[in-house]
Amino acid sequence: MRTEIATLGEFGLINRLTEGLTPKNPSTRYAVGDDAAVLTPASGTETLVTTDLLLEGVHFDLTYVPLKHLGYKAAVVNFSDIYAMNGTPRQITVSLGISKRFCIEELEALYGGIRLACDAYGVDIVGGDTTSSLTGLTISITCIGEVEKGKAVYRNGAKESDLICVSGDLGAAYMGLQLLEREKVVLNGTGQEVQPDFAGKEYLLERQLKPEARRDIIQKLAEAGIRPTAMMDISDGLSSELMHICTQSHAGCRIYEEHLPIDYQTAVMAEELNMNVSTCALNGGEDYELLFTVPISDYEKVDNIEGIRLIGHITKPELGCALITRDGQEFELKAQGWNPLKED
Amino acid sequence: MRTEIATLGEFGLINRLTEGLTPKNPSTRYAVGDDAAVLTPASGTETLVTTDLLLEGVHFDLTYVPLKHLGYKAAVVNFSDIYAMNGTPRQITVSLGISKRFCIEELEALYGGIRLACDAYGVDIVGGDTTSSLTGLTISITCIGEVEKGKAVYRNGAKESDLICVSGDLGAAYMGLQLLEREKVVLNGTGQEVQPDFAGKEYLLERQLKPEARRDIIQKLAEAGIRPTAMMDISDGLSSELMHICTQSHAGCRIYEEHLPIDYQTAVMAEELNMNVSTCALNGGEDYELLFTVPISDYEKVDNIEGIRLIGHITKPELGCALITRDGQEFELKAQGWNPLKED
Repeated sequence: MRTEIATLGEFGLINRLTEGLTPKNPSTRYAVGDDAAVLTPASGTETLVTTDLLLEGVHFDLTYVPLKHLGYKAAVVNFSDIYAMNGTPRQITVSLGISKRFCIEELEALYGGIRLACDAYGVDIVGGDTTSSLTGLTISITCIGEVEKGKAVYRNGAKESDLICVSGDLGAAYMGLQLLEREKVVLNGTGQEVQPDFAGKEYLLERQLKPEARRDIIQKLAEAGIRPTAMMDISDGLSSELMHICTQSHAGCRIYEEHLPIDYQTAVMAEELNMNVSTCALNGGEDYELLFTVPISDYEKVDNIEGIRLIGHITKPELGCALITRDGQEFELKAQGWNPLKED
Repeated sequence: MRTEIATLGEFGLINRLTEGLTPKNPSTRYAVGDDAAVLTPASGTETLVTTDLLLEGVHFDLTYVPLKHLGYKAAVVNFSDIYAMNGTPRQITVSLGISKRFCIEELEALYGGIRLACDAYGVDIVGGDTTSSLTGLTISITCIGEVEKGKAVYRNGAKESDLICVSGDLGAAYMGLQLLEREKVVLNGTGQEVQPDFAGKEYLLERQLKPEARRDIIQKLAEAGIRPTAMMDISDGLSSELMHICTQSHAGCRIYEEHLPIDYQTAVMAEELNMNVSTCALNGGEDYELLFTVPISDYEKVDNIEGIRLIGHITKPELGCALITRDGQEFELKAQGWNPLKED
């Protein structure tokens, strides 16, 4: 089934995509359909705002990314930013720039992925903009979140002797991307429809194609009575993000290679590709795990939480940012994370 | 002077563009530089959210639109949506997708236009996303506004016998676009650097290249103690917007051709192009004037406000939406406004 967009026009398309949306949050007073959405933030809260712009060919490749997964991921990466402030995502606006090569059914798949993510995380779609694009697909999502007054966690609060913690594991999303890129080359080479072999690598694909935001970690930290001194999500790579925290907190850090959390599949894939797995964990982006610091007095509390790994500690700024390797050598951390504006 | 973007990278560029930004609004608690901005809405207010996606080749043509004007307009059209809810714009996020053909100085011009608009309207830039684009320039702006609790004006409140009002005049921005397109063709045809002749048509160009949002009208209405029953801004053309109000309010309307507000320059240009000036006023688009309805009991109050024109009245839904021409004929209104998803 392939229905051309022109048969519906802008308003018909918007109606089709947003059909049956019902607000889940009491703060959503008026959603899609007017010049602006109207929100009523709960008293005693502050409002968080984050936004992401995703462009075809730069942030995603539709050769191997299904549109529904793309929609899901586009929403989740915004939720991740809100959790990284110690907040809860409540509303998003969704702007799409779409070229004629897409049909209504494809846009429903994309929007369906966004709606699925919103359902999973309790977020309302409250507005957006839909327009044609002369070239690739453009997705711009803005997320509005809520945090109890004074409870937001910034990047600039890390103090000397604080422990550096990471949720989940690192490098798997990057390995998933390598895997997809490899299969793409193989397929292009043969010109045949070969079913790619991803057996034993499902976790890597899932991390790349359907990442989740760590709402569970934020909840566990709250339950344990831990308030991080600094926090951010890892989208561009651990090294790069850690350096943001250190720069903004006027601090240095030491992290330990042996403590970097790495999944078995990530290690196997790195081996296959002849890559250093620690480098992947440090610089591979799109993990969407949380990186945060806690006072050393919270050591026992945080060490008891499943899914959190202590990887090092904060130092005086003069000591710089360094990685201690397994054999005890010290290397200065470099931000080699993904930087679309420096690429060739 | 032409500095390549790659010399600064993403974070260097963001620092350069956002340098010296200082929040003007007490509700802006934390702006650029973390995972999300933190806002503290004033008590007794509701939060408004609107967003616009602008794509090169679809919404603007850099052949004749200076980047600074483009930035100004991209911000102002969002402010216009907030005023159209009877609110005040307070914050924006700015996402840019930029190709390598742009240099730092050009992006400074674009961002400078956005900053100028923010200064003029008292709005803070609190975040955004900057990335490379493989093709054209992409601008996505989300605006956060504030309105006193219960004072938001929607599109759905128009009642039978309400008066239909329009601010300013209509069709000039569309004529400005025609003028620019005509000069572009002339210039392309000769292949020469001819200075285009815009004498006597400055107003049309200004309306197209540097529109303003009608904050002044919102203030005058408040001072006069008038609360519109329905309101929106005219971005796609009067006909199209009026039909939105009527559909959402379950009403019909009668508007009068002789009351359509049209500037002298608009009329002259329409004549030159052999176009019907009323059609331009009805379907032109990008006017960013306010269209609103008020109870008939407010007739004298609203009639006393300079810059507001009464163009008709709301009827029962069964009567449909119609234009009464100068010679007394009745024509059904059609939404022929700009619709990028229906274009060929």
